Amino acid sequence: MSWNSFGHLLRFTTWGESHGPALGVVVDGCPPGLPLTEADIQPFLDKRRPGQSRFTTQRQEPDQVRILSGVFEGKTTGTPISLVIENVDQRSKDYGNIAEAYRPGHADWTYDTKYGFRDYRGGGRSSARETAARVAAGAIARKVLGESIRIRGYLVELGGDAIDRANFNDAAIDANPFFCPDPSAAERWAEALDAARKSGSSLGAVVEVVASGVPAGLGAPIYAKLDSDLACAMMTVNAVKGVEIGNGFEAARLRGEENADAMRLGPDGKPRFLSNNAGGILGGISTGQDVVVRMAIKPTSSILTPVPTVTRSGTETEVVTKGRHDPCVGIRAAPVAEAMMALVLADHLLLDRAQCGAVPRG
Amino acid sequence: MSWNSFGHLLRFTTWGESHGPALGVVVDGCPPGLPLTEADIQPFLDKRRPGQSRFTTQRQEPDQVRILSGVFEGKTTGTPISLVIENVDQRSKDYGNIAEAYRPGHADWTYDTKYGFRDYRGGGRSSARETAARVAAGAIARKVLGESIRIRGYLVELGGDAIDRANFNDAAIDANPFFCPDPSAAERWAEALDAARKSGSSLGAVVEVVASGVPAGLGAPIYAKLDSDLACAMMTVNAVKGVEIGNGFEAARLRGEENADAMRLGPDGKPRFLSNNAGGILGGISTGQDVVVRMAIKPTSSILTPVPTVTRSGTETEVVTKGRHDPCVGIRAAPVAEAMMALVLADHLLLDRAQCGAVPRG
Amino acid sequence: MSWNSFGHLLRFTTWGESHGPALGVVVDGCPPGLPLTEADIQPFLDKRRPGQSRFTTQRQEPDQVRILSGVFEGKTTGTPISLVIENVDQRSKDYGNIAEAYRPGHADWTYDTKYGFRDYRGGGRSSARETAARVAAGAIARKVLGESIRIRGYLVELGGDAIDRANFNDAAIDANPFFCPDPSAAERWAEALDAARKSGSSLGAVVEVVASGVPAGLGAPIYAKLDSDLACAMMTVNAVKGVEIGNGFEAARLRGEENADAMRLGPDGKPRFLSNNAGGILGGISTGQDVVVRMAIKPTSSILTPVPTVTRSGTETEVVTKGRHDPCVGIRAAPVAEAMMALVLADHLLLDRAQCGAVPRG
Amino acid sequence: MSWNSFGHLLRFTTWGESHGPALGVVVDGCPPGLPLTEADIQPFLDKRRPGQSRFTTQRQEPDQVRILSGVFEGKTTGTPISLVIENVDQRSKDYGNIAEAYRPGHADWTYDTKYGFRDYRGGGRSSARETAARVAAGAIARKVLGESIRIRGYLVELGGDAIDRANFNDAAIDANPFFCPDPSAAERWAEALDAARKSGSSLGAVVEVVASGVPAGLGAPIYAKLDSDLACAMMTVNAVKGVEIGNGFEAARLRGEENADAMRLGPDGKPRFLSNNAGGILGGISTGQDVVVRMAIKPTSSILTPVPTVTRSGTETEVVTKGRHDPCVGIRAAPVAEAMMALVLADHLLLDRAQCGAVPRG
Repeated sequence: MSWNSFGHLLRFTTWGESHGPALGVVVDGCPPGLPLTEADIQPFLDKRRPGQSRFTTQRQEPDQVRILSGVFEGKTTGTPISLVIENVDQRSKDYGNIAEAYRPGHADWTYDTKYGFRDYRGGGRSSARETAARVAAGAIARKVLGESIRIRGYLVELGGDAIDRANFNDAAIDANPFFCPDPSAAERWAEALDAARKSGSSLGAVVEVVASGVPAGLGAPIYAKLDSDLACAMMTVNAVKGVEIGNGFEAARLRGEENADAMRLGPDGKPRFLSNNAGGILGGISTGQDVVVRMAIKPTSSILTPVPTVTRSGTETEVVTKGRHDPCVGIRAAPVAEAMMALVLADHLLLDRAQCGAVPRG
Repeated sequence: MSWNSFGHLLRFTTWGESHGPALGVVVDGCPPGLPLTEADIQPFLDKRRPGQSRFTTQRQEPDQVRILSGVFEGKTTGTPISLVIENVDQRSKDYGNIAEAYRPGHADWTYDTKYGFRDYRGGGRSSARETAARVAAGAIARKVLGESIRIRGYLVELGGDAIDRANFNDAAIDANPFFCPDPSAAERWAEALDAARKSGSSLGAVVEVVASGVPAGLGAPIYAKLDSDLACAMMTVNAVKGVEIGNGFEAARLRGEENADAMRLGPDGKPRFLSNNAGGILGGISTGQDVVVRMAIKPTSSILTPVPTVTRSGTETEVVTKGRHDPCVGIRAAPVAEAMMALVLADHLLLDRAQCGAVPRG
Repeated sequence: MSWNSFGHLLRFTTWGESHGPALGVVVDGCPPGLPLTEADIQPFLDKRRPGQSRFTTQRQEPDQVRILSGVFEGKTTGTPISLVIENVDQRSKDYGNIAEAYRPGHADWTYDTKYGFRDYRGGGRSSARETAARVAAGAIARKVLGESIRIRGYLVELGGDAIDRANFNDAAIDANPFFCPDPSAAERWAEALDAARKSGSSLGAVVEVVASGVPAGLGAPIYAKLDSDLACAMMTVNAVKGVEIGNGFEAARLRGEENADAMRLGPDGKPRFLSNNAGGILGGISTGQDVVVRMAIKPTSSILTPVPTVTRSGTETEVVTKGRHDPCVGIRAAPVAEAMMALVLADHLLLDRAQCGAVPRG
Repeated sequence: MSWNSFGHLLRFTTWGESHGPALGVVVDGCPPGLPLTEADIQPFLDKRRPGQSRFTTQRQEPDQVRILSGVFEGKTTGTPISLVIENVDQRSKDYGNIAEAYRPGHADWTYDTKYGFRDYRGGGRSSARETAARVAAGAIARKVLGESIRIRGYLVELGGDAIDRANFNDAAIDANPFFCPDPSAAERWAEALDAARKSGSSLGAVVEVVASGVPAGLGAPIYAKLDSDLACAMMTVNAVKGVEIGNGFEAARLRGEENADAMRLGPDGKPRFLSNNAGGILGGISTGQDVVVRMAIKPTSSILTPVPTVTRSGTETEVVTKGRHDPCVGIRAAPVAEAMMALVLADHLLLDRAQCGAVPRG
């Protein structure tokens, strides 16, 4: 987990800038013998792809992935899998003005300060376009996890307007442009986001991602806990400012006996939990219940409303970000959150097999 | 960041169980020539030490630290610093009953499932006693950071009752048993916690930790961002269920122009920010403003109120955790959060020097 | 140093097979602001490129490198540098027979055993073609090291015939197809290698690589010593079976007072060594003298002489490796050894700056 | 493999100086449920322990190991195992003179240069006393490997005098003070070493270590090959200047058909090799044959013969190393080499299980 690599054993390394010729990822440590073609990866990229509704950036990127290595006769070989996605719709001239003026809320000033200069075209390396590489890697992680683990990401809040959990409908998630499980909330969000967009503003969101079917025993205490790795993973996603596991901050407001998930024997005679406040993780180790993570995503700072700022050469000015931007970056973060969940779980599946492969488990 | 080690370059490894003979930490990668004695470390351990008020566990542990290596003639040599703390007040017999019954909300069941069995005495490795080792390591990290960086951890909420920011008084933090910066909140918390304790229950808390004087430029995008490493660090602390940077989840409820921290030139002609919603980090890199992190801590599950559970041998029962426990583990988490902040920042100071040591900065 | 990545801070990850569409490398952790274009990398690839004399494989690969990320306006940005090299002259049909029969001395059987199957085309991932990626990465490492560090790789032995050190002529190294510093040895080697080739055999070699101008103080005892990292680096190169530092195995035959490099004051009043048996490294740390490494390279097992072997399906047979092969893989290992030396040194330059950047040095 | 830690998954961290209060090691990532007591570790320390014959240092160290964590009811728990060994026979005053004068051939000058100063007592951290910690860790690695893997280290050359392989007698190894498998060589070595010691000199050695029963398939190409990790491991041992796998440098003098180990079907119908020039490793992966490593150990530089040197304050002088020293450090390196072999193999056993645990193997 250093620089541009993530993961202990299933380890991926991303590269590429928003306006370079291409971006990509090398996925290392994948078990051999898993069936893999571009067709296994592309659907996930398509979910994240921009330009699919008026609520995301109008940049047109086909985001076609190519496998350059690590697969032979349709199966992973155990060697590094190199994936590449070409950038085709760069309009770098859109970014001439931000070469000079720092966009508040963006990484412009910090990159300049850290590195002495920066690739300012579309945010360069700090662009959320990097997340396409993660989504591609995530598709491989799903192969490692197998069919029995299901991962689902969706928005539970947009612009401060939360879903009604009573309306939760899994089928609705893919039936609206917001990955929203509550159809009536989706309607309200459409109005709110249209209004924000027209007024040159942007909105934040809360994304929830749930993994079902995760076996108990994953997680490597104490400094690679399943929850600490998930927190790290989610916090690396652009614009994320908070991460919760299970009932998260709400847990701090409960009493001990309310928060602890009581245990009973299930019909199969095995222990089961009567609730899941813990979000499927205790002591950094999965319990076998749903693993539940939420992340808070700030409203994008790329807006048409002028914001006071300064220039590289040291004058005060205001900046307006034209280009083509998502009025709510949280929407496309849902497939990214799914990918990060898959990558962390797959990594821990291998870690656990390494250390505890000989432990008998139910 | 794997198993029991944390950090990229300033890397520490902790070991020890709640009821073993001792616990400790090896701090590796420390720059040479820093003055260091036990007296530099002990005050931080003393802040975290149990048994100092009726609001923490009554286990009596002097938590005296010994330096076994890495220091010569009062200065760090650049070689690993081994610190050891003896356990003196184990009462393992208190834990006989939990050898068999899983305590809900604890790691008993997950450790048993993962490893096939567990050291049940006082929670073994999953005990918060491990955090003493982090606090000791944190004292070394502070030496690496130097005097110009100040780190302060305190509670901003206990049992759902938040401080009034208008009452924030830095001097108050050490003047009450809660590390509470709002004296009137501290009074309310005393009552609430007494009540919870007497009724055999426990309360959660929110800890905030702020680092001032952090230079701009720390952080290693994209998978070792300053904020992702902080999120990971905080989430490894026992009982933490959520982490926020800056305004955190609140950011998801703001509009783009409200959330972005506008920039202007300061009196010295250098850029400054007009607000700090970002919590001192943009694009994973420090801005030079205060680095602000909050973490949600669940109420301890070690309570006298009976909770339904099951036993190792597969029967249903109820468990009551006698032993000696903190009615609010969030209190002693404040010095732990400070230590983790110090360790992450010091690590990133070295990482940044490695890659960008030749970049000229203000 | 796991799977397909190497390095602590300047960390590269290679990918690609002998007969896939391309191979490449991602170089992470490079300091920002270094001038870099393809023209800085290509000359090193050209030195390693096959088909340049009758003594190397006749496979025609232009080995043109493309930079896909991490460079902006001709300078490194501090973000990952992705380099890609297309494979253009695959003749996979040459390898039909080795899909079934294991080539002794090659990784065919071990890959099959470990992974359950393998990409057999040209050796797949185990092909020495992977070293092109290292050579490309090495060119970036040289930029990190700067002009004052000079690295030179050459053969000191071929087919058991050693050079005469008295004839050592730096200018001769690039004037013959063997990177041989002794012109008369080069003539003998040409004859020997022609004879071996014609008889369907192959020869081994010893490569020496020397780095001059390395500052004292590089190396991270105890488990990332400069010499242990060099030994690891060199042993990862295909066909290497031994590594020596300084006088290596010869040191084991000297007496203490012969082997220890005595010290005196130089004309500048600074300590200097009267000899360099240590090969520029003491206690894992560079002394400022030339860093000297040698590696033994076995004769390639891809020969026309039939060798007894078995097949995947469990029958005994003999194998003859047609394809196009180097009769002495040691020759093209010289630029690879240079690259690995550069990568290790550059990595340690950053590591040392991280920990000891504040230590005053002459 | 950075600073003072080694290993990918079974990862150990050593600490301690020659003349500090103690030294130790934390072994992390050990599988749970393995029987382990101090009695499993002590015999290996006893083999390495000084003062057992006139051919090793007369420093009297009982080297009693204590387990401080990670073991419960006689079994490993999967949490870090902390081992500590007290230093009891320091005579730091012996080292007063080397505080000022650099001992040629030692790390004195390089440590001072790198770190700005050093713990000069007995070599501080650069002392071979650190290898006690490795030997202790190695005993745990053997538990991970199980009974079917046998590791044997011995000297094959001392002072340039090699054993006669025809005399090789496994039982002889522990029957002389040199771990020498050739009884007649052992007699010659005794004379040679007595003579060297009396003349105030020292001798070098070559240690060979062989692991039998290693399953095929261990090794993680390309940058954590079994041989590259072994080379790294052995080169971290004090005084080692060269490492060979299989026939090593001799391989460079053979022809392709001589060096490649031909394959045939064994009586069980499975592939077997007709020779083992490869030393049990092909393409970085174990073949199932004996894993064979040799390392060259220089003569210690701690001798009574005066050697020209300089002082910290910049004057020329001569140094004589009194203290208590091994006239041939290679002898006690044999158990250390065994430990490093065990640690690398155990680490790779876990690594392989992580990635390839689902690959069916014979």
